[in-house]
Amino acid sequence: MLKECWKNVQERTPLVHNITNYVTVNDVANVLLACGGSPIMSDEPEDVEDITAICGGLNINIGTLNERSIQGMLRAGKKASELGHPILLDPVGAGASKLRTDTAAEIVKQVKLTVIRGNISEIKTIASGSGTTRGVDADVADAVTEENLPAAVTFAKELAKRLEVIIAITGAIDIVADGETAYVIRNGRPEMGRITGTGCQLSGLATAYVTANPEQRLEAVATAVTLMGVAGEIGWENMQPTDGNSTYRNRIIDAIYNMDGETLESRAKIERA
Amino acid sequence: MLKECWKNVQERTPLVHNITNYVTVNDVANVLLACGGSPIMSDEPEDVEDITAICGGLNINIGTLNERSIQGMLRAGKKASELGHPILLDPVGAGASKLRTDTAAEIVKQVKLTVIRGNISEIKTIASGSGTTRGVDADVADAVTEENLPAAVTFAKELAKRLEVIIAITGAIDIVADGETAYVIRNGRPEMGRITGTGCQLSGLATAYVTANPEQRLEAVATAVTLMGVAGEIGWENMQPTDGNSTYRNRIIDAIYNMDGETLESRAKIERA
Amino acid sequence: MLKECWKNVQERTPLVHNITNYVTVNDVANVLLACGGSPIMSDEPEDVEDITAICGGLNINIGTLNERSIQGMLRAGKKASELGHPILLDPVGAGASKLRTDTAAEIVKQVKLTVIRGNISEIKTIASGSGTTRGVDADVADAVTEENLPAAVTFAKELAKRLEVIIAITGAIDIVADGETAYVIRNGRPEMGRITGTGCQLSGLATAYVTANPEQRLEAVATAVTLMGVAGEIGWENMQPTDGNSTYRNRIIDAIYNMDGETLESRAKIERA
Repeated sequence: MLKECWKNVQERTPLVHNITNYVTVNDVANVLLACGGSPIMSDEPEDVEDITAICGGLNINIGTLNERSIQGMLRAGKKASELGHPILLDPVGAGASKLRTDTAAEIVKQVKLTVIRGNISEIKTIASGSGTTRGVDADVADAVTEENLPAAVTFAKELAKRLEVIIAITGAIDIVADGETAYVIRNGRPEMGRITGTGCQLSGLATAYVTANPEQRLEAVATAVTLMGVAGEIGWENMQPTDGNSTYRNRIIDAIYNMDGETLESRAKIERA
Repeated sequence: MLKECWKNVQERTPLVHNITNYVTVNDVANVLLACGGSPIMSDEPEDVEDITAICGGLNINIGTLNERSIQGMLRAGKKASELGHPILLDPVGAGASKLRTDTAAEIVKQVKLTVIRGNISEIKTIASGSGTTRGVDADVADAVTEENLPAAVTFAKELAKRLEVIIAITGAIDIVADGETAYVIRNGRPEMGRITGTGCQLSGLATAYVTANPEQRLEAVATAVTLMGVAGEIGWENMQPTDGNSTYRNRIIDAIYNMDGETLESRAKIERA
Repeated sequence: MLKECWKNVQERTPLVHNITNYVTVNDVANVLLACGGSPIMSDEPEDVEDITAICGGLNINIGTLNERSIQGMLRAGKKASELGHPILLDPVGAGASKLRTDTAAEIVKQVKLTVIRGNISEIKTIASGSGTTRGVDADVADAVTEENLPAAVTFAKELAKRLEVIIAITGAIDIVADGETAYVIRNGRPEMGRITGTGCQLSGLATAYVTANPEQRLEAVATAVTLMGVAGEIGWENMQPTDGNSTYRNRIIDAIYNMDGETLESRAKIERA
């Protein structure tokens, strides 16, 4: 599945509309180009409908949201929903402020999402904030570990089922789940956390992957998560003694640019759970 | 001419006011510093007139336009027009959305532009959108090739004459034309299209070049286009086996930083047409 | 003091809220991660109070201010003042436009600042714009040199005393002063001026350093300034023949990532004045 999903992105050049934060937007654009996709950025409410209409998928990231761009997110999201485009939500900082929590909940409510990708804390906020009365916080800890993995997988599947989306929880161990099936991925490096925006980049990648793989969306997201982790490992192997996090950022994107399906498949640490 | 234009930028350190998109703005700033210029960014309507007044030239890029920044573009453009500063328009995405097409047309109408730089599709939108009744779309194809080059050169010259600007159409083959003369440039690498923002960077460079070369504006723009292409070639030659598009971006800007007039002249593939 | 301040940042992982310009924001985030801190960016007035409340310090940079973000700066600044958080102002372009000069003055007036960091021209604008009737422009020249250093140190101390802040004036020679004591720092490389945003990065670093060193704020800022200069020197030593300003940017951040307290202390050119 990894090789096939990878090949489809190469061959179909998915065009992705991104409404993303201004901190990591350049890296998101370059990672989309690196993986074989093509990026367009637009967040102005009067512009987003036209732009999303010429794209194949939509990536909504609330990292530096403002009142104007929130309207852009909702209008683009509704238009892309109408057109049947795959839509990913990256709820950056949901739980850290009322505006972010409310905005993420509003997008979940108004937009027909395909994927929600975040860290465990953001995904727990999504779970709490969208009308459940179950105490999800009590069920899952603040980081996914080998010990609490089964509980986290169950949490991801149940949330995926309830919201009818694919849930991707990323961290040291990654989980990608729909209501039935989950993939657990153990690629990546802890040093990736010392670079700004590896999460945002992954959201861009995952949007390109679901867009180019409409027949196998769960597998597409799992492949994107694996790709990011494998690129993090290869990038780290290429580090020189004086390199630090700024060069590491370049080396990861470079590794995605130079990836091939065989390498991806041979290095993948992915299993069904 | 290349050596002289290059030298004038080095010696005159043109200060360029940029109203540009947030995707590639950092690269635009670094490429302006690399070429010997100096960048200032400001898009707030209440700020732009003061800022443009202390600069020598203005670079307007509509890549992530919004309602506020459009007002900034128009106010800065009018002020810079009054002051006689050279002004470049990069109509990113004109033709892809109504807002972008209309904004580009409004800028063409209200601002005394010196240069319009875009890909063939954006320039065709400018041609259609500014009041002509001729079917320009019928005259020029969607990419400039050796086959349709004569027609594209004629199109560029006629549009330049009608709008009283320099037209720069960039792609695999680049055309820089005023109403009388055109330059055709064949430098560059196809891999530059796998980096976000090489077009935006070129618009920054071209603004610095026209600002520092008031006596020979057409030659200045042609030199900037040649410089970007030569830097793309040198940057590619410096690539290491594990490098990809992210590092290539750095290598191109580095090549501009390390350029000298002799190298530029000896590698240039430029001719009058 | 350098080693201790450095160690405190490593151990305490200061979380810094940044309201900063979109030109250099990615580098600011990566430099904060490189030094051992953690960045959050938010400029929306409805979001900033919640975000600043979960952080330890606030970095306000007016480089691409707009009407909305100015409200964000003031609301975040007042909230952080109430919470007793250290707050740094980087008055980018104060003196270059009325809006920037007025905004900087308004922030000085409404926010309980801990540090103001800028070049000599910006700091002189702050001095003039905050109610003094003394002709500060007459006292200090446009660049700090060995000749006018004593006058510049006196100016910095007096301004620090009057505004009850730490003043950091950076350039070829750096001055960090409170009302009583000043440090003069002579690290760094002139080529740092050919990279966009080394000043913005330093403001991020200085905010992390004051946040993690509440017991010795003046020393913390002086250490951050020294760190930036030493990293600039190490980054330059690591340059390869084809490298230019874009790669130099990465090498400086990488040098901060790889710094240790001993190296910092042994290479520091810092003295009390």
